[in-house]
Amino acid sequence: MKVKIDGETRELYTLWREGETVKMIDQRKLPHRFEIASFGDHRATAAAIKDMVCRGAGAVGCAAGYAMAQAALEAKNASLQGFMAYMEDAAETIRGTRPTAVNLFHAVERCLEACREGSVRERVENVLREADMIAEDDLEASKSMGEIGARLIADGCRVLTHCNAGALAFIDYGTALSPVRVAHGQGKSVFVWVDETRPRCQGSRLTAWEMEQEGIPYAIIVDNAAGYYMRRGEVDMVVVGADRVAANGDVANKIGTYEKAVVAKANGVPFYVAAPEMTFDLNTPTGDDIEIEERSPEEVTTIWGIAEDGNHARVLIPGKGSSARNPAFDVTPAEYITGFITEKGLIKPPYNEKIVETFRK
Amino acid sequence: MKVKIDGETRELYTLWREGETVKMIDQRKLPHRFEIASFGDHRATAAAIKDMVCRGAGAVGCAAGYAMAQAALEAKNASLQGFMAYMEDAAETIRGTRPTAVNLFHAVERCLEACREGSVRERVENVLREADMIAEDDLEASKSMGEIGARLIADGCRVLTHCNAGALAFIDYGTALSPVRVAHGQGKSVFVWVDETRPRCQGSRLTAWEMEQEGIPYAIIVDNAAGYYMRRGEVDMVVVGADRVAANGDVANKIGTYEKAVVAKANGVPFYVAAPEMTFDLNTPTGDDIEIEERSPEEVTTIWGIAEDGNHARVLIPGKGSSARNPAFDVTPAEYITGFITEKGLIKPPYNEKIVETFRK
Repeated sequence: MKVKIDGETRELYTLWREGETVKMIDQRKLPHRFEIASFGDHRATAAAIKDMVCRGAGAVGCAAGYAMAQAALEAKNASLQGFMAYMEDAAETIRGTRPTAVNLFHAVERCLEACREGSVRERVENVLREADMIAEDDLEASKSMGEIGARLIADGCRVLTHCNAGALAFIDYGTALSPVRVAHGQGKSVFVWVDETRPRCQGSRLTAWEMEQEGIPYAIIVDNAAGYYMRRGEVDMVVVGADRVAANGDVANKIGTYEKAVVAKANGVPFYVAAPEMTFDLNTPTGDDIEIEERSPEEVTTIWGIAEDGNHARVLIPGKGSSARNPAFDVTPAEYITGFITEKGLIKPPYNEKIVETFRK
Repeated sequence: MKVKIDGETRELYTLWREGETVKMIDQRKLPHRFEIASFGDHRATAAAIKDMVCRGAGAVGCAAGYAMAQAALEAKNASLQGFMAYMEDAAETIRGTRPTAVNLFHAVERCLEACREGSVRERVENVLREADMIAEDDLEASKSMGEIGARLIADGCRVLTHCNAGALAFIDYGTALSPVRVAHGQGKSVFVWVDETRPRCQGSRLTAWEMEQEGIPYAIIVDNAAGYYMRRGEVDMVVVGADRVAANGDVANKIGTYEKAVVAKANGVPFYVAAPEMTFDLNTPTGDDIEIEERSPEEVTTIWGIAEDGNHARVLIPGKGSSARNPAFDVTPAEYITGFITEKGLIKPPYNEKIVETFRK
């Protein structure tokens, strides 16, 4: 992704490995400060995942792979038995960071598989290669979704998106924002309506920041205003990411996605979900089988930002002790989804059969 | 309305007159501080309207009436000519405070009409009586909407509301929240889902405060979560207020109302609009004829609240200089509205004829 640093534009990934060090764009400080954080060993990288220095399914998976690579380098002079014990121990540490991100467990498993055969030296090399491959797979899937999705974006298109399914949630490009990036790169004129996405405001904090960096025109709106612009005919398509897609095409995604989908349908606005293979969960028959996390009410009653003195500050919006509820995700039934943008191609309804066909191992 | 002050519960109006003084609950300080502000002459009351010490169509109209009453008392010893000149001048000052609130102009007009005949002393008395009548009319209309709307609320009902169409927006009771208050007073169990209502958060600041005072169970949710609870069957009805109702039943109201209405319909949840006669505008044929105010983007990019040090603070959410749009209202087409709760009764579709019939002068 493009990042403007001190007036210069650089191409960067969300995170990468330099020898024994893992580097990450520190997403806790965006959009107000741009900093790259370095983590010298696998424990430091695991702590960074836990502390949400990076977030987003793809990014967390890649960070886990790199942490396993660091562990392999740390144990490269050990005996075979010592090496394997060290790797198992590192895997345990990394698995303990974020309990719900399936990519993370998948990445750890891939790296463990890669150190099952050969000498210690060969195993180290295999783990490094596997960790790089996880990042490459992520990057390739994001790019493919971009190419496939960009075909849906006509010149002058006004795209609405919810939350941040952008480069920062993956190694680069992202899912929902990848088609926008590619279309923009193809010279098409694209405009993005950015839902602020309460309560955590990933839209106004991260998606707007990405658009700003790429020079793609955008406007942040409160989540309440999405329907207003759809009804006025100022939204040509909606593209969102997904946290999990059930076998029947029901989609769990950031709270508010369902409302946008219903209002899009009422206004004849196409509603696309961009998601890579690993997000499709063939073991979950329908959206009703997906458990929805309810998070702290404080995310609703308080908000942080930059105060007038330039420092980070958290403010309380309603009266002290007010009652609040905070479901973090919702389920959008498949009937509201015009199509899935995946690295394997565009999937159109009826979904059940086609999803199983596309992603059966 | 009930207000808890220092552990004691008092019954208060949003604003009232004590002799030559107008008193108001200072809504700029809610919900974090409860203060009653006093205004000793009509100029101070006019300034209070302009500074939004009180807000909401009904409250602003009543304040304007009381300001005219203050003016009449101020000029009570003048000559007839001097009195009339003073009243005309006061009317001009009051009209200049909030340019869009139709109630304000209506109240000023009623008070001017009341001082057209008789001696100065008689005219003063007539103006005082008219100002009191404006407040009484507001109160009666709110109460009637409460009685009529409460019939729609069954025991155990879970009501979702958007923005604040409560007691604070009128003299007492309010429009959308009046049926909730009355049903609660009748001993029915009622629960209120309070949309926070970005960008200005009148839901989490004012509606939640009112519910807290009345002891009515509620939970603040981000606007994105309304559809989630509707789809789960946890919302039995939606009730909102209105800024203007067109002759065909299209409703202009706080941004986000339209989305709630569309999602309510998709889930079979009844969607009611509570509005007094003066909100119906028979001269506006449809919602498309209503101009929508676009307000400062800063309402989207910044938010105020109480910082950890206990002081008011405003924080910037996205990066500095981010682009944002801020439409303040939207239009909900009549087809999404189950019924209008008015002081003249419940109006059900088809609306066009019935609205004209009910409110023709």
